[in-house]
Amino acid sequence: MSRSRQDVIEVAGRLFAERGYHATSMRALGRELGLLGSSLYAHIQSKEELLVAVVEDGARFFGAAAAAAVGDTPEAELKSLVAGHLRVIAEHPNQARTFLAEARSLDQALCDRIIAARDHYEEAFRTVLRKGIADGSFRVDLDPKTGSIFILSMLNAVERWYHPDGPMDQDALAATLSDFALRAMRR
Amino acid sequence: MSRSRQDVIEVAGRLFAERGYHATSMRALGRELGLLGSSLYAHIQSKEELLVAVVEDGARFFGAAAAAAVGDTPEAELKSLVAGHLRVIAEHPNQARTFLAEARSLDQALCDRIIAARDHYEEAFRTVLRKGIADGSFRVDLDPKTGSIFILSMLNAVERWYHPDGPMDQDALAATLSDFALRAMRR
Repeated sequence: MSRSRQDVIEVAGRLFAERGYHATSMRALGRELGLLGSSLYAHIQSKEELLVAVVEDGARFFGAAAAAAVGDTPEAELKSLVAGHLRVIAEHPNQARTFLAEARSLDQALCDRIIAARDHYEEAFRTVLRKGIADGSFRVDLDPKTGSIFILSMLNAVERWYHPDGPMDQDALAATLSDFALRAMRR
Repeated sequence: MSRSRQDVIEVAGRLFAERGYHATSMRALGRELGLLGSSLYAHIQSKEELLVAVVEDGARFFGAAAAAAVGDTPEAELKSLVAGHLRVIAEHPNQARTFLAEARSLDQALCDRIIAARDHYEEAFRTVLRKGIADGSFRVDLDPKTGSIFILSMLNAVERWYHPDGPMDQDALAATLSDFALRAMRR
């Protein structure tokens, strides 16, 4: 079967998400793709190269979601950020999970780059909390850094428990989670 | 150097927490302990046996914390649960992290046992939320299951960002996190 480099990255992302990076062998990846060792290495040099590609896809999806978040008020903008995060998890679960969970498996320089991308993403949450404090909608006694960590902690855990075919659809989850956070932060 | 089985389990827990289970080799463990291969295997049969021991320690610490939580009201009891969870993370970081992160590395039967222990722990949170709904202190439009997942998501993420020598000491973190959750859940 003919496989593109993008096919290889997609399947690697799925295996990294399901089993973890370290538990995924190149042999298992080749089997999953129906490629023998040498044909697999025609596409990529190493398992780490695949991890970098998957994690960078994840970083790009989250970055695009943050850039697309809009709202007339800090509350509305936060709701939009939450909905965007959940959309990335729903549409790109393997890249999202690998981006969030496997940075530490990269070597130092690559890990630093991913941490910088994650920090840039988290800054979008801190910024909206600061806006809400400035315009009087959010309370002043919760610092934006801690508040954004709490919200992102709830968002990042979603992929471990949430099933879209359960009692809550994705919009209901976004509304419930935003509501929880907003009640906690309002003045 | 003479080493007890408990020493081996302690060091294994630290390496699993730092590097992940799959990235920890028996060779690295032996080196860390100053034990050659054969002396290490005098204490334990396999890496999985060590993972079971570390994860079971974690389950026991969290179970004891939940059993010790007290409060005259659902609010006070939830604060006590939150403080107890943070105490386990502070006092037994390696066992806590391995318990929370590495269950999926166990074989199915063992993994099921850990998931049962975790569910039993989470039930303590669901129970206090149900009590608060029943006595009118918490709102009825957030189901206890989702509420407890949100709170545990924030708690479980603590070990990834919190430094006790930073601006917030452990009591301040417990108060801030409980306050965030209680504001989100009050009627």
